[in-house]
Amino acid sequence: MPTLDFWYDFASTYSYLSAMRIGRAAAACGVTVRYRPFLLGPIFAAQGWTTSPFNLLPAKGAHMWRDMERLCARARLPFRRPDPFPQNSVLAARLALVGLDEGWGERFTETVFAAEFGRGLDISSRETLGGLLRPLGLDPEDTIERALARSNKERLRIQTARAQETGIFGAPSFVTEGGELFWGDDRLDQALEWAVAELQSRR
Amino acid sequence: MPTLDFWYDFASTYSYLSAMRIGRAAAACGVTVRYRPFLLGPIFAAQGWTTSPFNLLPAKGAHMWRDMERLCARARLPFRRPDPFPQNSVLAARLALVGLDEGWGERFTETVFAAEFGRGLDISSRETLGGLLRPLGLDPEDTIERALARSNKERLRIQTARAQETGIFGAPSFVTEGGELFWGDDRLDQALEWAVAELQSRR
Repeated sequence: MPTLDFWYDFASTYSYLSAMRIGRAAAACGVTVRYRPFLLGPIFAAQGWTTSPFNLLPAKGAHMWRDMERLCARARLPFRRPDPFPQNSVLAARLALVGLDEGWGERFTETVFAAEFGRGLDISSRETLGGLLRPLGLDPEDTIERALARSNKERLRIQTARAQETGIFGAPSFVTEGGELFWGDDRLDQALEWAVAELQSRR
Repeated sequence: MPTLDFWYDFASTYSYLSAMRIGRAAAACGVTVRYRPFLLGPIFAAQGWTTSPFNLLPAKGAHMWRDMERLCARARLPFRRPDPFPQNSVLAARLALVGLDEGWGERFTETVFAAEFGRGLDISSRETLGGLLRPLGLDPEDTIERALARSNKERLRIQTARAQETGIFGAPSFVTEGGELFWGDDRLDQALEWAVAELQSRR
């Protein structure tokens, strides 16, 4: 079965669009998605940026917000601009790593993106994240404690370093088993097609 | 009839993709395209950039070249990476402005992009551009002289300032009569749809 790595940062607007549709889109063409939460912050910092390029470049930022409104309307997704932007996504990413080991990471990912960009909630807060863990049948305090374990923090650092080594510079990004890198929600369908074709050509 | 402004810089890779298909795509949905050549250089310079972001950010650049290869293959367009990149596009843009007044600007635009990104020709050179003017029935020396007239240089400066005032920060960009701005070749179809819907809603 073909697989596709889905690299995302919870703070990334366009990752919201992908997170809300990648499950169904991948299932429709028989692709297994591997969720890869990571942090864009250190990658941006390595380029000398102190915040999102959408904040550094006002015209680019203005277009992005309007583009998101239009794209969410087309996809029939609610859209709220989180304040502040970008949200601090470190705890959410650490939780997602724990969840992906335990089978609830995919649902959690969707839930966090929906809370942040659909309802405008502050996903840096333990209260918000705790409130999202409970409906998944998880104990918030215990789960957050595991997310904050030194070994789990280290995993997120390693995952982020791996993203950078892979050539990832933005989110969402998609990487096929053969190493083809696609950047942006608007490349998701092409990435899925590529993953399928790659496996067929190897047979 | 709905209209759409097509803002492009001859140095822009993704503008090549749009230039090669916008005529047919717009005709298919009854939209009139207004070609708006401009220069990204002054807009980038205002952000403190001395060259293309694809050169300033190596990972982003690597993805763009591979993305162009993949997209051109899908669109059955030849693709050559011009050297140097970005090409100096000032004379080509000045010529396009003259041509758009005289009815040959659209064909010239397509011809320049095809020469640059399909054949890897140096479009900063008078020889290259002259060779592209001749098949359009134009005298190269006379046409280039008119392109270099002070008033025409000033027009390109004004057009570039207008792009910046419109909120344009990259190319290609598309602007509807109602002022909706879409950035990127991957937004062309959406921009055309918007132009059509905008006019219908006003009726």
